[in-house]
Amino acid sequence: MTDSSLFAGLQTPALVLDERRMLRNIQRLESHISDKGASLRPHLKTAKSIDVARALLAGGTGPATVSTLAEAETFAAAGVRDIVYAVGIAPQKLDRVAAIREKGCDLSVILDSVEQAQAVAEASSRTANPIPALIELDCDGHRSGVDPSAPALVEIGRILHEGAAELRGVLTHAGESYEVSGRAAHSEFAERERKAAVLAAETLRSAGLPCPVVSIGSTPTAHAAQDLAGVTEVRAGVYVFFDLFQAGIGVCAIDDIALSVLTTVVGHQREKGWIIADAGWMALSQDKGTSRQSVDQGLGLVCDATGNPYPDLMVVKANQEHGIIAVRPGSNAALPDLPVGTLLRILPVHACATASNFDAYNVIPSRPAASLKTWHRFGGW
Amino acid sequence: MTDSSLFAGLQTPALVLDERRMLRNIQRLESHISDKGASLRPHLKTAKSIDVARALLAGGTGPATVSTLAEAETFAAAGVRDIVYAVGIAPQKLDRVAAIREKGCDLSVILDSVEQAQAVAEASSRTANPIPALIELDCDGHRSGVDPSAPALVEIGRILHEGAAELRGVLTHAGESYEVSGRAAHSEFAERERKAAVLAAETLRSAGLPCPVVSIGSTPTAHAAQDLAGVTEVRAGVYVFFDLFQAGIGVCAIDDIALSVLTTVVGHQREKGWIIADAGWMALSQDKGTSRQSVDQGLGLVCDATGNPYPDLMVVKANQEHGIIAVRPGSNAALPDLPVGTLLRILPVHACATASNFDAYNVIPSRPAASLKTWHRFGGW
Repeated sequence: MTDSSLFAGLQTPALVLDERRMLRNIQRLESHISDKGASLRPHLKTAKSIDVARALLAGGTGPATVSTLAEAETFAAAGVRDIVYAVGIAPQKLDRVAAIREKGCDLSVILDSVEQAQAVAEASSRTANPIPALIELDCDGHRSGVDPSAPALVEIGRILHEGAAELRGVLTHAGESYEVSGRAAHSEFAERERKAAVLAAETLRSAGLPCPVVSIGSTPTAHAAQDLAGVTEVRAGVYVFFDLFQAGIGVCAIDDIALSVLTTVVGHQREKGWIIADAGWMALSQDKGTSRQSVDQGLGLVCDATGNPYPDLMVVKANQEHGIIAVRPGSNAALPDLPVGTLLRILPVHACATASNFDAYNVIPSRPAASLKTWHRFGGW
Repeated sequence: MTDSSLFAGLQTPALVLDERRMLRNIQRLESHISDKGASLRPHLKTAKSIDVARALLAGGTGPATVSTLAEAETFAAAGVRDIVYAVGIAPQKLDRVAAIREKGCDLSVILDSVEQAQAVAEASSRTANPIPALIELDCDGHRSGVDPSAPALVEIGRILHEGAAELRGVLTHAGESYEVSGRAAHSEFAERERKAAVLAAETLRSAGLPCPVVSIGSTPTAHAAQDLAGVTEVRAGVYVFFDLFQAGIGVCAIDDIALSVLTTVVGHQREKGWIIADAGWMALSQDKGTSRQSVDQGLGLVCDATGNPYPDLMVVKANQEHGIIAVRPGSNAALPDLPVGTLLRILPVHACATASNFDAYNVIPSRPAASLKTWHRFGGW
């Protein structure tokens, strides 16, 4: 619960971050992973904030994961010294990777093809600073990656190791874990990640190749992993804030969600049961990920300004700068009386998407304070 | 068609704007509206760029429409002198409105309730600069607005006119015109807009109230309007760039689309027929609006780097920084051979949403030139 007078100076829509919940989320996963003997490599793509990175990274130097070279550059400049850029590398980006490395950040890339391995080896041969690469593995058919039992694995490894690059290890991400619900199902996906990565690491080592890093992870699997034998590190990102999607698959509770969008009621269509607010898809995003879950939260769940949810009130539709709030279909809850000018907070369906629409977090401090903190957020590539 | 060597210096994903197509789109609607005797008030929310505004606004001073006060402030500072802020006004925003007006921009607001009218009258009474307000009308059940035949119309008008505010007129937007296809259907919605606005204007005038402005518009209705009798101005926004959604409802052709996202191939899953590119939803947006049209374009239609579409190649799925490109379901077109490093351009489903992800347009000049122009783009509220 928050004293809503904290928000008096804000123009809506605005992004609000509950620092206490964020710190609790960070602590929860850190304990779980360190208890299992691996290290955590938080993904900074959700937050894109130096202040949040300081809370996520012990000592502020890493290890970390990023999804863009803009993130790598910004966090490297802020003192992060160990970063994996976890999107398959485009050959055209290698000069920029090398420039970040030259400034003292140990930035590594990922790849899943012979062509990319050749490009990384070739780029490395032009500098005295070999570019480290992790071979991306496909553990669940989700997106990218080499089949861990395919001959291409060793072929790629050999190009990196025998060329001028550095074979740093293997990496996988069970993106399909988002499609199942509950700890048991997520544990199974965690085990698929682990088995794929350990198999690939053993295959590379049997072929006389190095594989120091064995990296797995997604937010659902990181929280549910039972056994991390053979794994050196776990990656996860959205857990720092959590969202309705993660709550819907049982990874968190609604009251773990640290992020919300502050909005103002700007109208009503009473005969339709609609409240119009000034948070449209430009603020909330268009992510409707919970529409395939058992409880569809539309474009967000509505709370009062203190953060207390109206359990049956959600954003049912949005235009660019308008959100239409209504009672959940099928519910017979009464529409609360929320006059023009009322402040509300909307919990996001997908924190990464919602946060990306804003350039600052308005932070409710974890220690009682009279005012919000402002943390800058960046974007771009 | 564009010489793709223009893009050599860009990091992907990047936003590309074809100036020649943009100017053609602008000219087309300007001619149509001026032929019908009304004036055009372009909506600047799609572009959020001072350079694009200069091309849209005769003399660069207006009239214009905006969706945020950040737009109003930025365009006012750039010399635009006549702006409608076309989202129902929140009382908390009136001080900011007054500040923009104090600097010499004739900024007006819209509203559809007695409470808002009272707030605008009250705020106006605190300054010597009355705030002009347009009463928003509901012509099609889309979102906001007063029923033009309801008694609330005159009640609101009287509060504005007899208080310290200025009753500037009426405004409506047939957002439901997006849900129908073809010129005849869009003409019908244009006539609904016109009839609702003219009825409301006559009702206000009969009650002894002023109604100098009668404002209607949406991109589909603006292009299809046959009769603008009684209407003083027409608003439209996305036509400046157009997109796959507008092409899908017949407002433009695919080759009118002036906006695209430049992306690089970063991988393949050949057995699945997938090409992985570095434009995910962070670049493309998550707008899947064409999924309810006869041709589903997924998250975007794929073109080669010169802008030539592969008619059956689209982005079928996206994660934050990955787009999965595949042949359209049901097509038996062969997957083209697009090696890692290939540059592609993705036509957007919804130009407003896609553009909002970038902070610059890389502009292919309308006159042959050796290099791209860079036009800044802004966001926020």
